[in-house]
Formats: sequence, structure tokens, C-alpha cells
Amino acid sequence: MRLAALLSATAIALTLPLAAPAAAQAPDLQAINGIIDQGFNHSEVMQNAAWLTDRIGGRMTNSPQMREAEAWAQQRFRDYGLTNVRADPFEFGRGWSIVRSSARMTTPRPLDLRAIPIAWTPGTNGVVSAPIVVAPMSTAGDFARWRGQLSGKIVLITTPNEGSEPTEPAFRRLTDEDLAGRTAYNQPTHSHSNTDRLREADFASRLDAFLQEEGAVAFVRMSQRDGGLLHGTGSGYRMDDQRRTPGFEIAAEDYRRLARLARTDAAPALELMSEVRFHEEDINANNILADIPGTSRSGEYVMAGAHLDSWAASDGAVDNAAGSVVVMEAARILRSLGVRPKRTIRFALWNGEEQGLWGSLAYVDKYLATRAPLGDEQLDALPNNRTWRARWPIQPRAGHGDLVAYFNMDNGSGRIRGINAEGNVAAAAVMADWFKPFESLGASTISLRTSGSTDHVYMQTVGVPGFQFIQDPLDYGARLHHTSIDSYDHLRADDLRQAAVIMAAILLTAANSDEPLPRMPLPTRPNPTDPFAAGN
Amino acid sequence: MRLAALLSATAIALTLPLAAPAAAQAPDLQAINGIIDQGFNHSEVMQNAAWLTDRIGGRMTNSPQMREAEAWAQQRFRDYGLTNVRADPFEFGRGWSIVRSSARMTTPRPLDLRAIPIAWTPGTNGVVSAPIVVAPMSTAGDFARWRGQLSGKIVLITTPNEGSEPTEPAFRRLTDEDLAGRTAYNQPTHSHSNTDRLREADFASRLDAFLQEEGAVAFVRMSQRDGGLLHGTGSGYRMDDQRRTPGFEIAAEDYRRLARLARTDAAPALELMSEVRFHEEDINANNILADIPGTSRSGEYVMAGAHLDSWAASDGAVDNAAGSVVVMEAARILRSLGVRPKRTIRFALWNGEEQGLWGSLAYVDKYLATRAPLGDEQLDALPNNRTWRARWPIQPRAGHGDLVAYFNMDNGSGRIRGINAEGNVAAAAVMADWFKPFESLGASTISLRTSGSTDHVYMQTVGVPGFQFIQDPLDYGARLHHTSIDSYDHLRADDLRQAAVIMAAILLTAANSDEPLPRMPLPTRPNPTDPFAAGN
Repeated sequence: MRLAALLSATAIALTLPLAAPAAAQAPDLQAINGIIDQGFNHSEVMQNAAWLTDRIGGRMTNSPQMREAEAWAQQRFRDYGLTNVRADPFEFGRGWSIVRSSARMTTPRPLDLRAIPIAWTPGTNGVVSAPIVVAPMSTAGDFARWRGQLSGKIVLITTPNEGSEPTEPAFRRLTDEDLAGRTAYNQPTHSHSNTDRLREADFASRLDAFLQEEGAVAFVRMSQRDGGLLHGTGSGYRMDDQRRTPGFEIAAEDYRRLARLARTDAAPALELMSEVRFHEEDINANNILADIPGTSRSGEYVMAGAHLDSWAASDGAVDNAAGSVVVMEAARILRSLGVRPKRTIRFALWNGEEQGLWGSLAYVDKYLATRAPLGDEQLDALPNNRTWRARWPIQPRAGHGDLVAYFNMDNGSGRIRGINAEGNVAAAAVMADWFKPFESLGASTISLRTSGSTDHVYMQTVGVPGFQFIQDPLDYGARLHHTSIDSYDHLRADDLRQAAVIMAAILLTAANSDEPLPRMPLPTRPNPTDPFAAGN
Repeated sequence: MRLAALLSATAIALTLPLAAPAAAQAPDLQAINGIIDQGFNHSEVMQNAAWLTDRIGGRMTNSPQMREAEAWAQQRFRDYGLTNVRADPFEFGRGWSIVRSSARMTTPRPLDLRAIPIAWTPGTNGVVSAPIVVAPMSTAGDFARWRGQLSGKIVLITTPNEGSEPTEPAFRRLTDEDLAGRTAYNQPTHSHSNTDRLREADFASRLDAFLQEEGAVAFVRMSQRDGGLLHGTGSGYRMDDQRRTPGFEIAAEDYRRLARLARTDAAPALELMSEVRFHEEDINANNILADIPGTSRSGEYVMAGAHLDSWAASDGAVDNAAGSVVVMEAARILRSLGVRPKRTIRFALWNGEEQGLWGSLAYVDKYLATRAPLGDEQLDALPNNRTWRARWPIQPRAGHGDLVAYFNMDNGSGRIRGINAEGNVAAAAVMADWFKPFESLGASTISLRTSGSTDHVYMQTVGVPGFQFIQDPLDYGARLHHTSIDSYDHLRADDLRQAAVIMAAILLTAANSDEPLPRMPLPTRPNPTDPFAAGN
């Protein structure tokens, strides 16, 4: 109730001039003039994007492409004159990369299909030919129905859906009305923590074991998007959790055709081929870090970050070369102006984001705070991100207070429209002043919303102010996110230049403010929303 | 001036109840009840569509798939009890079909590309590997610039464009406002006829010759649509006009990446493979015709048609299995009701439409009217459709007056919203009555518009009333027309059932009306719009 009252008051306050809170300090507008000049007139954001996407390509964690990107990004930071440029390793697992692949229908007629190997599944060792069976399986409870029917078959595991009627524009920008509708805080819901489900292997692993037992040749899933788009996302990178069955994602139109033909007497059969590589010579992945050293308060730092890794279906352009090159450009802009901020400004290019925010979690765990073990041998042996939120209390590390604010960019190529303040009303009030110079650039919405699924999340879990910018969605969700067309073409130069200007300015303002940005209290174990629900 | 005044009056008249003209006759509403019952409750439209698309697949004229479709459609008409079911041959050229193909970038990094062989280009005879050169050529005037630079190269001939921001919905239906805006006649513009350009071989043929002289390995063009969609349309089916250079269309995103890399030191190289078949054992293509015989006026007939052929990038579902199965379903509905119309009702599935309306032109030329030769040996040896409009006068054949009305469907899967009356105000007035029972099905717009690029066009050129229905566009133009996702998934059962009901009803009404539908005067050589412009 207290929170709701607070929020209601804040929602009003944010549409009015805010009374200057203790921590506020007016942005240095003369410095921002320099940032605007550098960022709009001398930008290198698209040159860097072209290298990262066209030249290096998709950057699966621990693949050769990602190793190349790690080295290139460090060199770029050094070129720009940053200090303490470094690769900060964490354990991830093996890399995986595609050499080539193909899929064809051979019966009832010859037809090339659009397909991509599923990440971390093994290659087919040449062309394999087999009839298909449509055997939808999405939980282990589905296995029994298909036992004894899969031997020698290519198994189609998805229940085909109806397809889409795309009645909304694929590409759009946020209107004033959209932005006004985005300011509401999403109040957290807490359930009883139940660690039982953590003991189960995940479905992909259990499916693989079942398919091996049954003697399936390969499995195929349907793309979740229409229009011939592919994704190829998958798991199985941990050295103790590996796949043995080749897997393919097939375009929705091609998959549905197969599923329909399988219901006739056509007896569809496929030829599948995938040649892939596993990379086990180094199972550590690297976050790339680089600094502009602080002066009077150099023990504290502000940080901007974006994940440099991607999936492999295309070149990882809007997810997330976009954010990566904006971070690099913010660094370039500030270095080119020779700023000497009070606090250190750190730039982070995270790794292993796509598989569960591994890089940013590793950073949090190493430098900011860890969490107590569960005291259960099996559970405490699980990967860190599976149990993280269930472990209490939080144990702050020595550096917990040093990170004053973190700003993340991971929503594609769209320009910055403001920031999500994650329920931190005190920080929201301060940031409203920081964003004021960018009102005419369309970037002054301070929302109390939380946002998820990217690299500020684990900072929030330990009470460090980590925020994600609000961006215009463009066609990120509609057709680009993780898809086979996420290439340089779909980046928007004007938007990325604007984002870099704002990121550089906010970093500089945060680094120079008299007071550190207000924090939320250190999280402690929450009370479940319904204390009477079943749980342990 | 006289025409404009007439049209203006008509545009008003069409929004008001029309005075019944001489030829009008109220539709037989009891018969239409039967049609509605059959068409909405006992439809076979989707079963037929599934066979034509999933089972048979893309139907390139004179390919084995199209031969199969020709045989299947005849059998289906026979199953439905039609009479005089026949394949009506015309000379076309050789067939072409894809067995398999692939395209990969090998330098600077390995990457599978989305590609399709261009129709009627030869296969690569195994995998060919070569560096690329970006050499934009769209007219023969461009050849000089690239002479001497293409030997041993894969030649990218398209100037890459900027890509799209799809800010409009891909899928849409016509609003009342849209429909109101579609009623205006598009007044014809006539230029001086200039037959000089007919003497030139077309660009595809000249490009092929140039690439052969230069020793190019293959050529590549860019898809005209974003989003990884492919088309693969091409020419070169005539026995005297064949291609010798393998050609590929590559997805826009993949093509643009190549073009950008070619401007760096990356020296991109490709591996291309296409295995295709030419089919020369029979160079005739077949229109499929089937009748419901007339009674008291059986010498006259009304006809509905759609083209059965398609391109090969997918299964030719919305272009134009949709129209084909609606024509077949209209036949089924009318036969199942045992109608005995005054005039014969004919159903036509055209062939060779995609290469220039060959099938319907052959029908016109054979049964309705021909045109005088130009009296120039070279020009008169050209394919019929290249010179047709330049030849005067029209010479009606004995059957010219027998075809009372022709109704075409070739705009995808969208429901019928009315009809384009092609400037025939007398027929428009009659058809307004015919469509009245379908007002609540959204199908009562009578537009004076002309429509082009499909099989009623050549009937219009000889003064026979040939009309195309107005249909909801859905995502036909935005993403399906000729593309790699034109498959069964994107057909809409409700829409196709509605279309079949309306087609059947309009055919029956036209077949039973007391007077034949009013005609335009027999076309004679038009006066050029600007009599002072240069011309011969």
C-alpha cells in the first residue's frame, strides 16, 4: 500500500517540473554540446557496426567469431585511448559454430527447405535421409505417447500453429501516448520459492536423451515466426550437459507443409545435413571492459554496457551489435573530448548474454555481491543463474558501493526515448533532470517500469542501480529479434547516433554528480504475495 | 470530354439505386440459397488447395508439376460431373524445374545464404566457387563499363537499395473508404505506337550473351523484397531464346552484405550450386477447360477463369491456387445443384500466365479474335504477346459474340469485395443488380476501374467483356506475390469459400439473364493522347 501510494504521487510528479532532490546536479550543457558535435557529426557507430556484423558475423559465445569480436573490441577501445582495457573471463562451456547446412524434402516431391541447425546440437556427419514422424513433445510427459515409434525417423516435435495475419505494422516508433502508457511501475509478484523443479534436467536435455533411447535420426522444430524466418537458438553448451541428436529448426511454412503432408498418404521424407564445429579449447568466455579513469572520486564508477554475443542465424545486428557499438561510440565520444570525470566511467561488452545473462552475472558475482549457497549439494552444483534468485541472503562484496549507476542498451537499433527507473523513485527524480537536455531528441520519458531479460537484471537483484534505456521498438520484436534477417541492413544510423550521444551524456553527468544516484534498499527475502499458497 | 462527363455521371449513379437497364434481370435468389448452402457448408476449396500446393507444389508452365496439375484438375472437373473437360494446347516453350540448389559465402567467413536459381537459367553442373564482382547492369548501356572485368567471376548485377521500414500492416482488408476510392475509371493514355523497340532482344537475353562473352561464372541479382524472401522469376523458355549463364536470386539482406563486403578488403567469394531440369519433350502448354452445357442458348457461354501455373519459389498458393480452386469450387457448387442454365457455363484454368498471359491470349486468338499482322517479317515472327497491341485492325472470329461475359480471379486469397467494370458503364449498371444479394457479404462495389496483368486483359483488348473481381488484398502484395512463402498457410478458408459462392452465383445469373451483358464497341486504333508528340 505504501509503495502504491508513493508511486501514484511519483507518476504525477514526473509529468510536472520536479523539485530538485538532494542528489540532483544540473548536466554540464557545454560538455553536452561537445558530445552532440562528436556524436552526430563524427560518428563511427556504423563503421563499427559494419565490422561487427558483415565482417565478423554472428557471435555465438566461445565461437571463433566471438573470439574475433572480443579481440577486435579490445583493440578498438585501445584505439580510442581507453585505459585498463581487458578481457575478464568467466566459465561458460564450449563454443559452437555452423560450417554449412541444408534441408530438403525428397518425398513426395523435391523441395529445398529453409532450415538452420539448432545451436549446440551435433552435425549429421554427412547427409541423412529418413521419413518424418510428427510427434509433438513439449514436456517429458509427452514421451510415453511416442515410445517405440521414432526409430530411424526424423522427428517433428512442434504442434504446428495456425500462422499469422500481420495486421500491425512491423516497424513502429513510440508515440507520446505509448510513452505516457509506459510509466507505470510493474509491481512485483512473489511466489513461495520452490527449489524442487531445479532438480530436474531441462526439457531439451531430457528430449535429447529420449530421442537417443528411441533411435531417432534427428529432430526438427518449427520456427516460432512466419515468413520463412529462422532462429536456431538452443542449449547444451555446458560440458556436463551435451546433446547427441542433430536438431534443426525449419521455417514455419515449410514445417506446416510437412505436418499436413504427414496426415496424407504422401509419406514425406527429408534429407538433412549439418556440418558444425564445437570449440572446447577454452571454456571461459570473456567480458570486455575498458575505463576512462576518474579523478577526485576514482574509487567509484559509472558503467554502460551491452552484450557483444549473439545467436547465429544472422549477424546479430540489432541484437546486439547495436548496443555494443553505441557503448563503444559513447567511449569514443568521451575520449575524443578529453573529459576528466570525477568518477571512473567503465564500458562493458558482456558475453554469454543469450544463454542466460552469464557475463553480467559473472561480473556481479565477482565484484558486487554474491549469494549464500542453498546448503544442498545437488542444488549448489547447478549453474549459478539457475539458483541465484532462490539463494539468501545477499552477501555484498567490497565493490558493492563503488558502482554508482549502470546503463544497459539491448533493445535493438531504435533511438533512446528515456529510461526505465525500475521502481527507484529517488533515482527517477534525479534522472528526470539528467534527461532534460534531450527532451527535443524525444528522450525524456522517465518510467518506473522494470525491464528484464538483459544485463542490468542481476545488478538489480543485488541492489545496485542498473537501468535499461527505453528505445523505439522499430521492427525488433516483429521480425528481427534472434532471426535470420538480423543483419546490418536493419540498423538505423540516425537512431544509433542519437543513442550514443545520450549514453555519453548520461554517463558523464552520472560520473560528475555530487551525490551518487540513490539506491533501493539491499534486497532481502521477499514475502510471497499470497502467504497461504502452497510452497516450502 | 464526352467520356469524362459520362463517367462523372456514372460515379454518382453507382452510389444510388440504379434504374433497371434493358439487360438487367434479377438474380434467382432461391438458386443463390442453394449456392450459399453448398459453398459455405460443403466446400471442397481447401482440400483442393492443399493438393495443388502441398502435394503438387509450384507449377511452372511445362514443368512436371504443372503437367501433374493439368491432369489432376481435369480429373477433378470430371469427378464433379462437368462435360467437355479438355486440355487445350498452345505453343509455349520448354519447361524448367529445380531439383536442388544452394549458395554459401566462403570468404571472408562461412555463411549459408538464402538463394534460388533464376527460372530457365541452366544449372551449375556441380558446385562452382568464385570471387564476386558487383557490376550493376540494368540496360545494355551498362555493359561497356564492366567489359573485361567479369571473367571467372560471380557477377552481382543489382544496385543494392536501402531496405525497407515496413510501417504499414502487411495484412489488410479494404475499408468502406478504400472501396469508395476505387470506383474511379482510370482513363486510358495512348502514345504513338513505336514498334522499333520490339526489334531489340530483351535485357535478360542480352545480359546472358554479354556474360557469356566475358566468361562470367554465374550472375546474381538481389531479391526485390526484404526479409529473406525470394522469387526466382525469369525468362528464357522459348526454344529460340535460351540462357547459358547460371543465375541466382539472393535474399536482399544477404546480397547487401556481399555488396558492402565487396567495398572492403574482404574479397568475398561464393560457392553456388544449382541442379535444374529442362523439359522439352512437349513444348505445348495446356489450358484446362470444362463446361456445364447450356440449354435454350447453348451457343452462348459465360466463363470464369484463373491461372493454374505459378512460379517455383514456393507452392503458388495465393498466386494462384486460390483462384484456381475457387473456379473449381464454383463448378462443383453449380454441378452439385444440378443447374441447367440457358447459356453454357465454362470454367478455364489458364497456363503460361506468369510469363505473359500466354494461355488466355491463345484462347482469345483461337476462339474470339485475332489481329492483322504488322507486315514486317521480323516483327511478325515475334511472340504473339509482344506485338499484339500494336496490330490493327482486330479481326473477330466466329465465336467472338458467343462469349457473353468472363470473370477472372487472380488477386490472392482475399474475399471478393465487388468487381472492376473496366469502363463499361452499361455492364456496371447490370452487375450492380447481380451483386446486390452479396451486399452483406461485403461484395457489392462496382468500380469502373480497369485492372491489368492477368487473364481477362486480352479479352478486353478485343472488346469481349472480361472482368476481374475486386478482392481484399490481405498480405498478397506485401509478402506473398511470387515469393518463397506463397504456400497453403497463407490461404484463408473463409475468404475462398465466400469467393466461390459469389463466383458461382454471378456465373449463374449471367448465364440465365435475358440479354447478354452489354459490351464496349470493338476497339479500333486509338488516337494518341498528344497528337503532336514524336512517333511513327
